[in-house]
Amino acid sequence: MTSRPDRRSPAMPTVTMIGGGQLARMTHQSAIALGQCLRVLAGSADEPAAQVSANVVLGSHNDLDALRAAAEGAVALTFDHEGVPLHLLQALEAEGVNVRPPSTALHFAQDKLAMRLRLSELGLPIPDFADLSGDSSEARATLIAFGDAHDWQIVLKAVRGGYDGRGVWLTDSRAEALEVFDAQVGGDAVLMVEQKVAMVRELSAMIARSPYGQGAAWPVVETVQRKGQCAVVVAPAPGLSAERAEEAQQMALRLADELGVVGAMAMELFETVDGTLIINELAMRPHNSGHWTMDGAVTSQFEQHLRAVLDYPLGATSARSDVVVMANVLGAEQAPSMSMDERLHHLFARMPEAKVHMYGKGERPDRKIGHVNIVGLAGETITDVRERAERAAHWMSHAEWTDGWDPHAA
Amino acid sequence: MTSRPDRRSPAMPTVTMIGGGQLARMTHQSAIALGQCLRVLAGSADEPAAQVSANVVLGSHNDLDALRAAAEGAVALTFDHEGVPLHLLQALEAEGVNVRPPSTALHFAQDKLAMRLRLSELGLPIPDFADLSGDSSEARATLIAFGDAHDWQIVLKAVRGGYDGRGVWLTDSRAEALEVFDAQVGGDAVLMVEQKVAMVRELSAMIARSPYGQGAAWPVVETVQRKGQCAVVVAPAPGLSAERAEEAQQMALRLADELGVVGAMAMELFETVDGTLIINELAMRPHNSGHWTMDGAVTSQFEQHLRAVLDYPLGATSARSDVVVMANVLGAEQAPSMSMDERLHHLFARMPEAKVHMYGKGERPDRKIGHVNIVGLAGETITDVRERAERAAHWMSHAEWTDGWDPHAA
Repeated sequence: MTSRPDRRSPAMPTVTMIGGGQLARMTHQSAIALGQCLRVLAGSADEPAAQVSANVVLGSHNDLDALRAAAEGAVALTFDHEGVPLHLLQALEAEGVNVRPPSTALHFAQDKLAMRLRLSELGLPIPDFADLSGDSSEARATLIAFGDAHDWQIVLKAVRGGYDGRGVWLTDSRAEALEVFDAQVGGDAVLMVEQKVAMVRELSAMIARSPYGQGAAWPVVETVQRKGQCAVVVAPAPGLSAERAEEAQQMALRLADELGVVGAMAMELFETVDGTLIINELAMRPHNSGHWTMDGAVTSQFEQHLRAVLDYPLGATSARSDVVVMANVLGAEQAPSMSMDERLHHLFARMPEAKVHMYGKGERPDRKIGHVNIVGLAGETITDVRERAERAAHWMSHAEWTDGWDPHAA
Repeated sequence: MTSRPDRRSPAMPTVTMIGGGQLARMTHQSAIALGQCLRVLAGSADEPAAQVSANVVLGSHNDLDALRAAAEGAVALTFDHEGVPLHLLQALEAEGVNVRPPSTALHFAQDKLAMRLRLSELGLPIPDFADLSGDSSEARATLIAFGDAHDWQIVLKAVRGGYDGRGVWLTDSRAEALEVFDAQVGGDAVLMVEQKVAMVRELSAMIARSPYGQGAAWPVVETVQRKGQCAVVVAPAPGLSAERAEEAQQMALRLADELGVVGAMAMELFETVDGTLIINELAMRPHNSGHWTMDGAVTSQFEQHLRAVLDYPLGATSARSDVVVMANVLGAEQAPSMSMDERLHHLFARMPEAKVHMYGKGERPDRKIGHVNIVGLAGETITDVRERAERAAHWMSHAEWTDGWDPHAA
């Protein structure tokens, strides 16, 4: 071996992600490809991302000193969740930390009421809503008027902190709604109320935006919710017209631009019974509705999120196949007799094409602990691909295999 | 949030990889998807895999205690390179470590003479060769007789330790050959000699084999060598007949079976001027000729290697596209004016579909520091896809962009 000078390249940039969950875990996989190592602020060493990254800062996302330590020397600070208090982000920004998305944008992902008001100003389609954040007896009167106006087909929401069905209450009667209101407001929650939209299905428009202003949209997908959280994603959304799909993408891109979003963003939508689109929720980070991109799109949402926060040009967002289906692996109610390792073994024996992504999480009932992607082959129908994806995820959750497994009966 | 019992799954298995290079780095990406964290034995914390894995043991692969520490509690021990002395692997096996591939198989990847003798016994097609490992004056006489018989169109090889063109000398004359022989044998190298095969191109048949005996073969690829190392891989090999491709796959699968290989294996082949196949080299690990699978096949070689060493059922090996091209990013002769980060930025601006894999390595002339995969779109020609892949890699290596870039002139 000849002796030649080893010219160390100027180091590749370090990105810090706040939160050590599965989104950070999967972002780390993409960071590796880009020549980086994701730095993670995690609450403990056994969090999904902390298990796998060589660069972990242990601490709380509520502690400014921990946030500062995690940001030290990083070219950008980004997020695995929306839980970092806004005033801490503002403090970091004041100290020169490159927070992406910036606090001015993230504010709208953290505060559902602010988001609704902003969407309303922009003339974007949203459900009828009312603010219940003020004085509790006035708010109670507002709720009663709103409920009466909507036949009590309403949704109560916590303005802050909800996710995966938490902080959202679908109610069907005045009594039920007031019970939730009294319990939550008594417990210091800040609420808002929305009409329950008569919808045929839920969609998600995922995009990414860079500080330079470049935007890129993946195909719009259909999301299937069970027990208040995403269970299945079908890409692209079956039967959605090109016009509606483009309308959804344009709304997401426009909103990201208006709010100054940087990174991946999911706009969750309702497709109503009369065929229009209504905006439900926003997330300014990689999102469950984008997990299919890991195996099914040219650029995954995790690579794209890093490219966006680094202000790299964005990657191609086209799908690799006419149909891709993602199904979440959920923790089972009862401890299955098989370990996760054994379940994986059995799944692989049955479906050599299944792409499995496990998060390194302990199993709790209905907890998202992984997902399976099935990328359809030429000529396969959506029904076939979806059936396989759901069967694979059901197996991983329950260690029981049903050949005639009907996901719609679940 | 309700309080529910957190049933920690029995931990997912730990696999240890000896060597902290790019193969371990990319294997770690696949380990993450399988719910694991790859444990790496690395010589230093700045090796490519040590930069990114949370489970690093620092030490030498020549040190039995370091190997023991790395193997502790792992369900399998596998390799990023072929450099671990065989007696140390045998010692680990005697202590109950699950070495995969086992020393009995790895022996043939470490010792080119033993491999040639075994291939010969099995009746597999190999170049004419002679053993120069004995007494040096007898070996010199053997070399002269072999050289005369082959018009001095011969290749001298170190029996152990060569890679990427190191330990291989192509000579064209008696004087040149004897000069290499005298210098190397004087320097204690053990040599063998082979005829130079009159070939039209090089191919690689990559397969994987599990302890259970399952085998799986990826499409056979064409490899393009420059300066003695792999520069470009075209998948599948253009114009290769289905019969020849199957012959190559079957030879690789049969050999893996005969040798008891576990994990990924590359069989490098010559396609001769008369259209037959001759076996050149073997590697019992993920291999440069399989990097295209990361973006271009249903199962990447890194996931497959893990599945094999864990005795999981193997994954589907079909290509995602009619043509996929990989091009290595090499360190430039002169330090380019742009940092690697800036080069990446510019590449992404020009080719949003390029899949880049950087290894976190310092730049030295011709050192493999990354690779680019281009997955062809429907209707794209091999020429188009290859041109883009080579142009992308050239850009990353040289920070200079040539629109009319002719890879064949390189």
